[in-house]
Amino acid sequence: MKRRMLFSLAAGGSLLATGCTSTRPPASAPAPAPQGTGDLGVVIERAAGALTLINTSQRASIGRVTGLGDLSHASVVFSRDERFAYVFGRDGGLTRVDILTQRITHREMQAGNSIGGAISADGSLVVAQNYQPGGIKVFDAGTLELLADVPAAMADGKRSRVVGLADLPERRFVYSLFDADAICIADCSNARQPQVTTLENIGRQPYDALVSPNGRTYIAGLFGEDGLAMVDLWEDKPKARRILAGYGRGQQPLPVYKMPHLRGWAMAGRHAYLPAIGRHEVLVVDTGSWQEVARIPVAGQPVFVMARPDGRQVWVNFSVPDYNRVQVIDTPSQRVIDTIEPGKAVLHMEFTPRGESVWISCRDDNRVQVYDTHTRQLQASLAVDAPSGIFFTARAQRMGF
Amino acid sequence: MKRRMLFSLAAGGSLLATGCTSTRPPASAPAPAPQGTGDLGVVIERAAGALTLINTSQRASIGRVTGLGDLSHASVVFSRDERFAYVFGRDGGLTRVDILTQRITHREMQAGNSIGGAISADGSLVVAQNYQPGGIKVFDAGTLELLADVPAAMADGKRSRVVGLADLPERRFVYSLFDADAICIADCSNARQPQVTTLENIGRQPYDALVSPNGRTYIAGLFGEDGLAMVDLWEDKPKARRILAGYGRGQQPLPVYKMPHLRGWAMAGRHAYLPAIGRHEVLVVDTGSWQEVARIPVAGQPVFVMARPDGRQVWVNFSVPDYNRVQVIDTPSQRVIDTIEPGKAVLHMEFTPRGESVWISCRDDNRVQVYDTHTRQLQASLAVDAPSGIFFTARAQRMGF
Repeated sequence: MKRRMLFSLAAGGSLLATGCTSTRPPASAPAPAPQGTGDLGVVIERAAGALTLINTSQRASIGRVTGLGDLSHASVVFSRDERFAYVFGRDGGLTRVDILTQRITHREMQAGNSIGGAISADGSLVVAQNYQPGGIKVFDAGTLELLADVPAAMADGKRSRVVGLADLPERRFVYSLFDADAICIADCSNARQPQVTTLENIGRQPYDALVSPNGRTYIAGLFGEDGLAMVDLWEDKPKARRILAGYGRGQQPLPVYKMPHLRGWAMAGRHAYLPAIGRHEVLVVDTGSWQEVARIPVAGQPVFVMARPDGRQVWVNFSVPDYNRVQVIDTPSQRVIDTIEPGKAVLHMEFTPRGESVWISCRDDNRVQVYDTHTRQLQASLAVDAPSGIFFTARAQRMGF
Repeated sequence: MKRRMLFSLAAGGSLLATGCTSTRPPASAPAPAPQGTGDLGVVIERAAGALTLINTSQRASIGRVTGLGDLSHASVVFSRDERFAYVFGRDGGLTRVDILTQRITHREMQAGNSIGGAISADGSLVVAQNYQPGGIKVFDAGTLELLADVPAAMADGKRSRVVGLADLPERRFVYSLFDADAICIADCSNARQPQVTTLENIGRQPYDALVSPNGRTYIAGLFGEDGLAMVDLWEDKPKARRILAGYGRGQQPLPVYKMPHLRGWAMAGRHAYLPAIGRHEVLVVDTGSWQEVARIPVAGQPVFVMARPDGRQVWVNFSVPDYNRVQVIDTPSQRVIDTIEPGKAVLHMEFTPRGESVWISCRDDNRVQVYDTHTRQLQASLAVDAPSGIFFTARAQRMGF
C-alpha cells in the first residue's frame, strides 16, 4: 500500500516515479532571483493533479508544478518560512513543493485515502489525517520522514476514519474519529511517541471540525444527529459538550447537495456565521452563549461562509444548482449587500491577509477571479485548469489551518 | 533640510552618502540562495544606527545592515511580500532595506524629526508621520518617490506634530494631531492628492494611538487630560467620543517615568489590557462598554502590555527602575502567573506569529533573549548591540501596524 518517493535535491537527482514531474526550472538551473514569499500562494488544479503558483501582489500566476496525483479533495499547509507547500492529496499522497524553485522536493504515498493535514506552530511537524487506513501520521517537516503512525483503533480492532485535524500550541494536534464518535488530542512533543487523550461519546459521526482563530474552541459537526460538539481547549481537562441542538439536517432531513465545509466558518467579532444545512440561510450565533441570534436569507445552500480578515464582511458560496453566485454579508447590519456571479461552479475563496482582495475559483470556467472586496470590482482574471482550493502562504502564520 | 538619497540597484551603482553602507553582499555578489521570508525580522540597534537581521526558525541572527542614521526611536513596517523593511528613524530618515540581499536599496531624509510610519494594505504606499515639519508624507513603496506632502496646518499657520499613524483599508490612513487636538483620516486612493477628513476637539494633546486588530476602533491617548478618544471607523461618518474618563495621570499626577506605548495594547477576547499610567497596575477593560472591569497588580509602571497572538497570555514590561523584569498574565484567571528577568533594560517584545516564542530586547546587556511562551524556558540568546525594537515580517499581513 505504502509507496515511498523521496526526491533528491542534489543536482542531477533523478525523478523516480512516472507522473511526478515538476515543470521548471530543471535541477541544474541557476538559483532564481531573490523573491519574498509573503505574497505567494497555490491554486489546486483538481483535474490535472497540478498546482498553479500565484503572486497576490502582481495578481498573476508565476508558475506551475505537476505530478501531484489525485487532487480531487486536496488541502495545503505551509512551512513557517512560507517557502514550502505541503499538499495532501485524496489518494494519500503527501507532496512538499518548493514555491521558489517551483519543484517537488519530496513526495510520499502515506495512505490509501487521505483528507488533509496540519503543521505545528514551530514548523517542525506535519501531520496527515487518513481515512484508509484510519489514523494520523506524523512526519518530519524537513524530510517527510515518518516519525509516528497513530492508528485510530476502536474496540473491535478496526480503525476509524479521521476528520477535522487542526494544530494546537506545543506540538499538539486535535482531530475527530468519524466511526468512533470521539475527539482526540495528540501531544507530539515527543514526536516519535505521541500521547493521545481521547474524549468519547461526543456525538454521532463527527464529519468535519474547526478551531477558532485564537485556538481556544474546537467544534465538530455531526453527521449522525443534529447539534455540534464543542471543546474548550484551554481547560485543564478538556471535555466535549453539545451546542446548537437544532443545527443539522433535522428529523426529516432536507435534500443536502453538499455538506458545508466547517473549516470555512466565519468568526467575526462576537458572532459566528454558520452555513445552515439544506436551507438557504446563514445562521448567526453568539459565541458567548452559543445560541442562535439571527438567520440571514441567502441565494442557495451555503457551502463556505468566510469572514474577511477584519470581520466586516462575510462571503458565501453555494452548492449546486446555485454555485455560480457569491453573496456578501455586511456584519454590522447582518444584511446581504451584494451578489456577484464570478463564473461557473464556484468551489473556493481565499482572502488576501489584510482583506483587500478575494480570490475565487470557478472550476467549470477554468478561471480564478480576483475581486476588490470593497468595491466588488474585478481586479484580475487568471486562466487555471479546473481550479478548486486556493491557499496563500499567510496561512503559515495562523493557528488552526 | 531635505536630503534625497536614492540608491541604485544596478551593479556598480555607488552609495552616495557617508554613513550609508550595507555590510553584505556587495552589489556584484551572486544572488543569495533561495530563502523564504515569512520567518525573518529585524532588531533595531539604537546606538549604532543599524539593523540586526534575524531568522525566527533558526533563532539566530543572519546578517547586519548599517548606515540607518538615528534609530533612537525607530519603527519598521514591511512590504507585503515580506522582503523589504521600511525603517523610520527619529532623524527623519526613511530607509528601505532588502532583507534577502542585506542591503539598503533606498534612503530618504524626508523630515527633520519623525515618529514612525505605516504601509497600505495593497503594499503600494508608505506614509511617514512627522514632528518637524509637522504632517504626513506619502511615498511610492517601490521607489520612495514623494507622492504627497500633507502638512498638518493649524489655524495660526503653524504645523502640528503628528502621532498615532495607522493604516486603514482602501489606501486610507488615520493619525492624530498633538498640537491641534484632532484626529485625521487621509484617503490616499489618489495618492498625489489625498483627501483629509478632520475630527476636531477630540481631547487635549493626543500623544499616541492604536487601531484594534480588526481595524474598526481607533483609540488615542491624551497627554493633556484624563480619558481617551475613540473613533468607530466603520461608521459612515466617523466621530470621536470619550471613553475611560479616569484613565490618565489624574488630577494630582503621579511621577511617570515613561509614558506607555499604546501600540502595544492587548486586545484579547472581549477585554483590552491597558497599562495604568504611573501606577503598578494593568487595567482590564470590557471592549463592549469600555468600562474598567478589573485591575491586576504588577511589578512596576507598565510600558508595553502585549497579548500573545492567541490572547491566552498578556506579557508586560516596565519603566525604570523595574525594567529588568517581564511579567506574564494568564487572561482566563486574570492573574500574574510568572515573572522572568531576561536582562537589563528590557525595551521591547515581539511574539512569533503563532505565539510559540517571544523575543525580548535587553538594551544594557546587549542581548536579545528568546523564550518559549508556554514553559518560559530560554530558547536562544543573541548578542545584539543595544537592541530596542524587534519587528517580524509577519507584521506585513496585519492591519494597524
